Amino acid sequence: MRQDRRSTCPIATALELIGDRWTLLVIRDLAFAGKRRFREFLKSEEAISSNVLADRLNLLVGNGILTKSGDPTHAQKAVYSLTEKGLGLLPVLVAMSAWSQRYYPETRRPEAVQVVAGGGSFLKRLERKLRSEHGVT
Amino acid sequence: MRQDRRSTCPIATALELIGDRWTLLVIRDLAFAGKRRFREFLKSEEAISSNVLADRLNLLVGNGILTKSGDPTHAQKAVYSLTEKGLGLLPVLVAMSAWSQRYYPETRRPEAVQVVAGGGSFLKRLERKLRSEHGVT
Repeated sequence: MRQDRRSTCPIATALELIGDRWTLLVIRDLAFAGKRRFREFLKSEEAISSNVLADRLNLLVGNGILTKSGDPTHAQKAVYSLTEKGLGLLPVLVAMSAWSQRYYPETRRPEAVQVVAGGGSFLKRLERKLRSEHGVT
Repeated sequence: MRQDRRSTCPIATALELIGDRWTLLVIRDLAFAGKRRFREFLKSEEAISSNVLADRLNLLVGNGILTKSGDPTHAQKAVYSLTEKGLGLLPVLVAMSAWSQRYYPETRRPEAVQVVAGGGSFLKRLERKLRSEHGVT
């Protein structure tokens, strides 16, 4: 989570930026659950605390993975959007999802079967949809 | 890192098992750096502590992602191998690596260019090599 990256290894660099479970869960909520607002992220099944959520959202905005827009005097009205760089993390999430669904049958969901089966085409359709919704051209 | 997974979301499940930077760095060392032994993992650029390393190796073995073999009375002579389930995490690492190399030019390495450019074929060759080295049939 540090800004001063120590390693020039690309995998270590990704892990310093997104290598904690809460960060990727926020990106999951944006990408797969259509969530865009602070209160919406708070309602996820994993029960993120508001302190941790605020920290992760700030880091994601600071690292150019999300943008924040809306009324700056009303934090709860802010809307978060994935950037091009944020959309670039979809393959990471899809690879994690496919792995879990392969090895943990209880995580398989009817609506997620296409993630495993569809692979590239699912990813392309999801990315097109998110580009439109999040204003990434 | 818990064993009692709270969420049935496949992404959350993956993050509970591998969602900290040290866990995936150990898998990186096995997959890309040919490391197999405790002392070898300790020497990585990111300077993992021996306590954290021992904890992560135990969790990875406990979760069936690695196997440990060798003389049980000489911990330092133990050899760790990726399992089929561990090899299944390669697409996650490759996706992270490709993302970092796209957005952080200082992480680009001549030998890693193929990860970005080659995509599927690079992954297939790496997996074949690791299957042979780690005895996964």
